[in-house]
Amino acid sequence: MRAAIMYGAGDVRVEDRPDPTIVQPTDTVVRTVLSCVCGSDLWPYKSMPATDTGRPMGHEFLGIVEETGSDVTHIKVGDLVVTPFTYCDNTCDYCKKGLQSSCRHGGRYGWDGVDGGQGEAVRVPQSDGTLVKLPVDADSELLPSLLALSDVMGTGHHGAVTAGVRPGDRVLVIGDGAVGLSAVLAAKRLGAEQIILMGRHTDRTDLGREFGATDVVAERGNEGIARVRELTGGDGADRIIEAVGSRQTLDTAFGAIIDGGTISRLGVPQYMEGPVGADMIMRNITLTGGVSPARAYIEELLPDVLSGVINPGRVFDQTVVLDEVPQAYKDMNDRRVLKALIRL
Amino acid sequence: MRAAIMYGAGDVRVEDRPDPTIVQPTDTVVRTVLSCVCGSDLWPYKSMPATDTGRPMGHEFLGIVEETGSDVTHIKVGDLVVTPFTYCDNTCDYCKKGLQSSCRHGGRYGWDGVDGGQGEAVRVPQSDGTLVKLPVDADSELLPSLLALSDVMGTGHHGAVTAGVRPGDRVLVIGDGAVGLSAVLAAKRLGAEQIILMGRHTDRTDLGREFGATDVVAERGNEGIARVRELTGGDGADRIIEAVGSRQTLDTAFGAIIDGGTISRLGVPQYMEGPVGADMIMRNITLTGGVSPARAYIEELLPDVLSGVINPGRVFDQTVVLDEVPQAYKDMNDRRVLKALIRL
Repeated sequence: MRAAIMYGAGDVRVEDRPDPTIVQPTDTVVRTVLSCVCGSDLWPYKSMPATDTGRPMGHEFLGIVEETGSDVTHIKVGDLVVTPFTYCDNTCDYCKKGLQSSCRHGGRYGWDGVDGGQGEAVRVPQSDGTLVKLPVDADSELLPSLLALSDVMGTGHHGAVTAGVRPGDRVLVIGDGAVGLSAVLAAKRLGAEQIILMGRHTDRTDLGREFGATDVVAERGNEGIARVRELTGGDGADRIIEAVGSRQTLDTAFGAIIDGGTISRLGVPQYMEGPVGADMIMRNITLTGGVSPARAYIEELLPDVLSGVINPGRVFDQTVVLDEVPQAYKDMNDRRVLKALIRL
Repeated sequence: MRAAIMYGAGDVRVEDRPDPTIVQPTDTVVRTVLSCVCGSDLWPYKSMPATDTGRPMGHEFLGIVEETGSDVTHIKVGDLVVTPFTYCDNTCDYCKKGLQSSCRHGGRYGWDGVDGGQGEAVRVPQSDGTLVKLPVDADSELLPSLLALSDVMGTGHHGAVTAGVRPGDRVLVIGDGAVGLSAVLAAKRLGAEQIILMGRHTDRTDLGREFGATDVVAERGNEGIARVRELTGGDGADRIIEAVGSRQTLDTAFGAIIDGGTISRLGVPQYMEGPVGADMIMRNITLTGGVSPARAYIEELLPDVLSGVINPGRVFDQTVVLDEVPQAYKDMNDRRVLKALIRL
């Protein structure tokens, strides 16, 4: 099969790889139908040291089950399935608590001999727990939105859930990338009354408005904080979803949060330390969030995607074939593209 | 009247001050019956720059209402009342959310022309919202435990509540000071199954065991983390209440918390930055807590104190009169005394 492999910063190649086969009786081989490039793929694209062996890329995909291991019972050959972006047994104590991202038998696509999702086929470990059967055909127009359940929508939803968004809340979403926009959609879905989107790419913030943002703040840093406070009657936002991951955006979050409010982080932090001193204590601010246990949310979000209540697939503004994936990385890294869909 | 005034590090004096009078129609003057010294009073005792004017000390007291302002309706002369350690109107939007520590008309004893609690009388601003009438006589043996509702018990309870302690949880309390011990009591009250108390003063940890601690860990740092993990089946504690405030104890908390767990901080941080990088995100750790809105908890905890279910007043291991307050500071600072009760 062919798959996208990263050999270092700026160096993604599509090349031949061995076809996946069943290794463990809990494995399933999935023939990929749709995949995509994640914002988090851009961090190694910017910084990965050059390597001879390369790393299979991609962790979001849906496809058709091609072969199942002898222990697999929930999924059968021919099923259309979507995966969360980490695999998991969905039965261990962490999974039962809804923290599939910490599954005792889980792991990441592209690591430890497991294929990436940006390729023609994938061996999925712990597939009974990982994969969710989709009740549509492989040519359904809903497929991009169903693919979004693999990561981006489940991640935005995790931000809204851990931030504690409730009806009537004033929510700030920092970052107009695909995760930030999904967080807007999730906050709207959970009943937020005011959703301020902080971002400066008008094509993206326009989509954010369609997703439910009531206000857009283009300013950053102290100016951005002042603008958010102005929009929230001086007090700051009740809930903040930080979907960038820089130290500057973290500082912005602490500046724009109301006393007693919650900041949920979704972006992978590009810093080691943060401002958790006396101010955070005096104002009773909570810092939460993290890697989404996307598997926990698929069944919850699926009905709203199927019924069209939410259309998270609108974050895909480019569609490529596998050979164009290197260019898709470049386009996303240059911010010409929000999120690239890969049609296999 | 006479009151304790701090003039700088190590310099607490008991001296004459003007008798408090009603200034605002919402004020009440309370004749103090019991007060005490707080662990947080020791921070200025260690570090306050010398001053000519001094600062009235103390923020925990109960006493008899001596005079009420014209707008005061809930409290009448002769009532025995307890105060939370910050005053508040208990009607603003923050108070209604249970965040009386951020009250729009609230403030701190000993600041802004308001008396401290370590004196013979106190003018209490916003007294209708602040003061809670106690249904006992001024000679009740319950008075020390009722005084504990002013701060230390409400603070320990805030730690347990914000940490999300639920029945069956494995809880770690870091610090065997009066707040840590109160947090043990609070965690037990909320149904924690295992309560590990980290501290090395056996007289204090012995009281901690009586309060509900199931295990005591004397080790600190990496050894302490290893011991907590050993006691929790390798995974770490579900909830951690950090009641010290040093960077070392914060790092210990991050090392000893389970994936998906919550760390609640009660200690005033003696640091500006903390380890909130990728590990916190990958493991979905929540950092919360802060200054307790003690007013929010008095009615909830009062019945359990009155019935003897909890006896938080046991943290007082020294009783002094007002003139002995300077020595009480010294004894607490030297760790010869856990928490000093002041009988007026």
